[in-house]
Amino acid sequence: MPDPAPLLSALREALGDAAVRCPSADEPLLAHLQDWRQRYRGLALAVVSPASTEEVAAVVRLCAAHGTGIVPQGGNTSLVGGAVPDESGQQIVLSLQRLNRVLDIDPLNLSMTVQAGCVLAQVQDAARAEGLLFPLSLASEGSCTIGGVLATNAGGTQVLRYGMARELCLGLEVVTAQGDIWRKLKGLRKDNSGYDLRDLVIGSEGTLGIVTAACLKLYPQPASRLAGLLRCPHIDAATALLQLARQQLDAELTGLEAMAAHPVALTHRHLPQLAAVAQALMPAALDGTAATTAPPAMLADAPWLVLLDTASPRPEAALRASLEALLAEALSQGLIDEALVSHNEAQYRAMWALREAIPMAEKLAGQMVKHDIGVPSSRIPAFLRATVPALQQAFPGCQVVCFGHLGDGNLHFNVQGPPDMPAPAFLATHEQAVNGIVYAQVQALGGTISAEHGIGRLKREALADHQEPVATQWMRAIKAALDPAGTLNPRRLVP
Amino acid sequence: MPDPAPLLSALREALGDAAVRCPSADEPLLAHLQDWRQRYRGLALAVVSPASTEEVAAVVRLCAAHGTGIVPQGGNTSLVGGAVPDESGQQIVLSLQRLNRVLDIDPLNLSMTVQAGCVLAQVQDAARAEGLLFPLSLASEGSCTIGGVLATNAGGTQVLRYGMARELCLGLEVVTAQGDIWRKLKGLRKDNSGYDLRDLVIGSEGTLGIVTAACLKLYPQPASRLAGLLRCPHIDAATALLQLARQQLDAELTGLEAMAAHPVALTHRHLPQLAAVAQALMPAALDGTAATTAPPAMLADAPWLVLLDTASPRPEAALRASLEALLAEALSQGLIDEALVSHNEAQYRAMWALREAIPMAEKLAGQMVKHDIGVPSSRIPAFLRATVPALQQAFPGCQVVCFGHLGDGNLHFNVQGPPDMPAPAFLATHEQAVNGIVYAQVQALGGTISAEHGIGRLKREALADHQEPVATQWMRAIKAALDPAGTLNPRRLVP
Repeated sequence: MPDPAPLLSALREALGDAAVRCPSADEPLLAHLQDWRQRYRGLALAVVSPASTEEVAAVVRLCAAHGTGIVPQGGNTSLVGGAVPDESGQQIVLSLQRLNRVLDIDPLNLSMTVQAGCVLAQVQDAARAEGLLFPLSLASEGSCTIGGVLATNAGGTQVLRYGMARELCLGLEVVTAQGDIWRKLKGLRKDNSGYDLRDLVIGSEGTLGIVTAACLKLYPQPASRLAGLLRCPHIDAATALLQLARQQLDAELTGLEAMAAHPVALTHRHLPQLAAVAQALMPAALDGTAATTAPPAMLADAPWLVLLDTASPRPEAALRASLEALLAEALSQGLIDEALVSHNEAQYRAMWALREAIPMAEKLAGQMVKHDIGVPSSRIPAFLRATVPALQQAFPGCQVVCFGHLGDGNLHFNVQGPPDMPAPAFLATHEQAVNGIVYAQVQALGGTISAEHGIGRLKREALADHQEPVATQWMRAIKAALDPAGTLNPRRLVP
Repeated sequence: MPDPAPLLSALREALGDAAVRCPSADEPLLAHLQDWRQRYRGLALAVVSPASTEEVAAVVRLCAAHGTGIVPQGGNTSLVGGAVPDESGQQIVLSLQRLNRVLDIDPLNLSMTVQAGCVLAQVQDAARAEGLLFPLSLASEGSCTIGGVLATNAGGTQVLRYGMARELCLGLEVVTAQGDIWRKLKGLRKDNSGYDLRDLVIGSEGTLGIVTAACLKLYPQPASRLAGLLRCPHIDAATALLQLARQQLDAELTGLEAMAAHPVALTHRHLPQLAAVAQALMPAALDGTAATTAPPAMLADAPWLVLLDTASPRPEAALRASLEALLAEALSQGLIDEALVSHNEAQYRAMWALREAIPMAEKLAGQMVKHDIGVPSSRIPAFLRATVPALQQAFPGCQVVCFGHLGDGNLHFNVQGPPDMPAPAFLATHEQAVNGIVYAQVQALGGTISAEHGIGRLKREALADHQEPVATQWMRAIKAALDPAGTLNPRRLVP
């Protein structure tokens, strides 16, 4: 192993001592070395925190000169181990968190320019302060950074209307593997001058360049928003409801989330405090009379709950009329058999709180084999009909925790071991076999093994098995062309 | 020069004699060798017309083995010389026109799969027959192919709402420079499994791979559509109107086109038959009483005409109410001083006919120095205030023909020489100097020299001057990595 001292002292000279921290017993820096799901715990030579794009470039040049791998890191919320170092202790974690300024907002162009280390919620707030909307929203928005959001092309709950991170980005500033700076922070909606390098960097998980700033697309703030919580008798009804909602609401449909009965039951079991939230949905909550003691029955017994999110530039009454017309039609077609529409902001938030509680309930329920699959939304029912019985046959007593972004054809499809087997043992023993069953169906239906979480470390080998060989060849050729020394996020994403 | 006979006989053996045509005096094949603007007239060894993806791959393998360059061609409607061969006579034109089948439509997934040689209008029609919308629309839609549309990331008149070709594509099938086939015709709205190879191929103008098929995004057909033709006193009013329209109409605003007085005057001068179209806009046309003899005065004297396009899932009366509320507000703010709203489909089409007549009127008015610039829409007024006087000072008597997609910050900004100089002479003598003035302002304002037409042959040198050196390095590295022999569309796009 090479002596790390010369690199560390060069980094300290370039950035100052405080910006170069080495993990130690006193300061283990675990927040930078372990992933959120606690599946990977790495080591690192140092956690380096540059304060400017130029300092990022200097770090890259120094590491390249010393042959040291760099793991770029924003809020360290990757769900696939993409943002933590390996176990060698030879890599540098490059934290972007000090690049956290909003640089510019252009209301007339509906765009804003921010540094990569801005937290997503901070970006949303800055837009809102100008009466504008940055629509990307996801569970970790209080800690994930915009640089990480773009490096992983994050999705979230508003994709149906506004697209993933890629579609919300107009321009980038990127530090290359050679330590050069590519500045293209342009706020252009149309630009056909050359290869689409922006979209190549977006979603490349830090393996082709380090995002240091971005120009983002904004939207006017909607005048009104409403949610509907709907009970669907079966999954075919839920997908038919999606089609009807797109037809009747078009762009006023902003999200459509589905939750099977089991994940809803998990929230009841592990998060009893949600009962108070659910009571906000009772009719009694509307007129201020005494609260009932139980949440609506549909929360307990729905085969599928669908959360339908809407927003409009029109007044709330007009949006409500459109939404109620949709629900009346869905009721008459038998696509839903019970429906609640939010009557105030508290109810709107309560409906979302029920949906957003699922990942926490899952975490409390113990480790699972997790998937983030996507198939065309027309094939979701076929996927479930094939996969759930196959799993139950292979692992009697296992339970599927299925919920997610039905409107985008993206389900979080997680598998919980049988009650008589400890969760860590199930994960350790059967993860590969579970993946084999799930991914075979995904592939047969023209789907993806990673709809929004990315590949990182967790799915790197699986990617090579589930994409065309030509795609693997192209990825390797592009990586070799742009980062020939392999300095940037080594052994992540690229098979 | 190598003997072409072995390649030609190998191609004939692979594809059949009829699919390999050599230009001759009897059959000059000019439709394949000359561009639509008649700026470039090339030669070719042969025009080759494979009938399947496998035949495209065979052609590529044979040409690669013989060291022969391939120019992929769809409808040959490139405006930058991207789809015609050079003058060497050593290249092959590979026409995709026989790959012209609609392969599949999935209404529940809102997607369709088509071969690359399908004409854009054919794709629109196939979607419409299912009650669905493929929203991409542009002047050459009757002859351009979907493969060319994707290879050039075409824009058009509905970008404001639906995005450019890239945003309307879910999956691709591509033949690589090695003659391999990359099949990823997936209809997924979310897919974070690996680098964004799809968007790298889209807009690469045939230099990285040959698009042979695509899976496209569809939308529900709107229930209603209306257009407004508006008289704006000045360009700042037009950009303020854009902001107001986005705020009040959000996604129901599908397009916002602007036309300066001079291009409108050109349509009156060169296309007198438009007067009949314009009469459809008179109030008298509504109640069937005798037509007046003149079109509305606003067509003759507007400093800027804005065409505002809207579509909605709501009934026409509801959309009309929203549009009229917007126009009332715009009138009261002084952003417009006269407005016509379409009252029937004939009026809707007449308004668009006036806008779409401009390119033909331009063609009849003689050659011009053409530009397809983009700047943030907030900077359009600054661009015009700086550029128009600079041109008039440098070339007294010149006229600017300015119109286009104001809603996207994209203007066609064409420069007509002084009346006392023949148009070809102005173009031959002053094109470089005119470009210098226009592009300097574009660059100063953070814009692009090609918003939607691409780079092709026309702007290849200019691209190197107007993008960051890092971008040029990346483009060259990617081209060398994926097409090391330089077989695909040689000396186009990549500086």
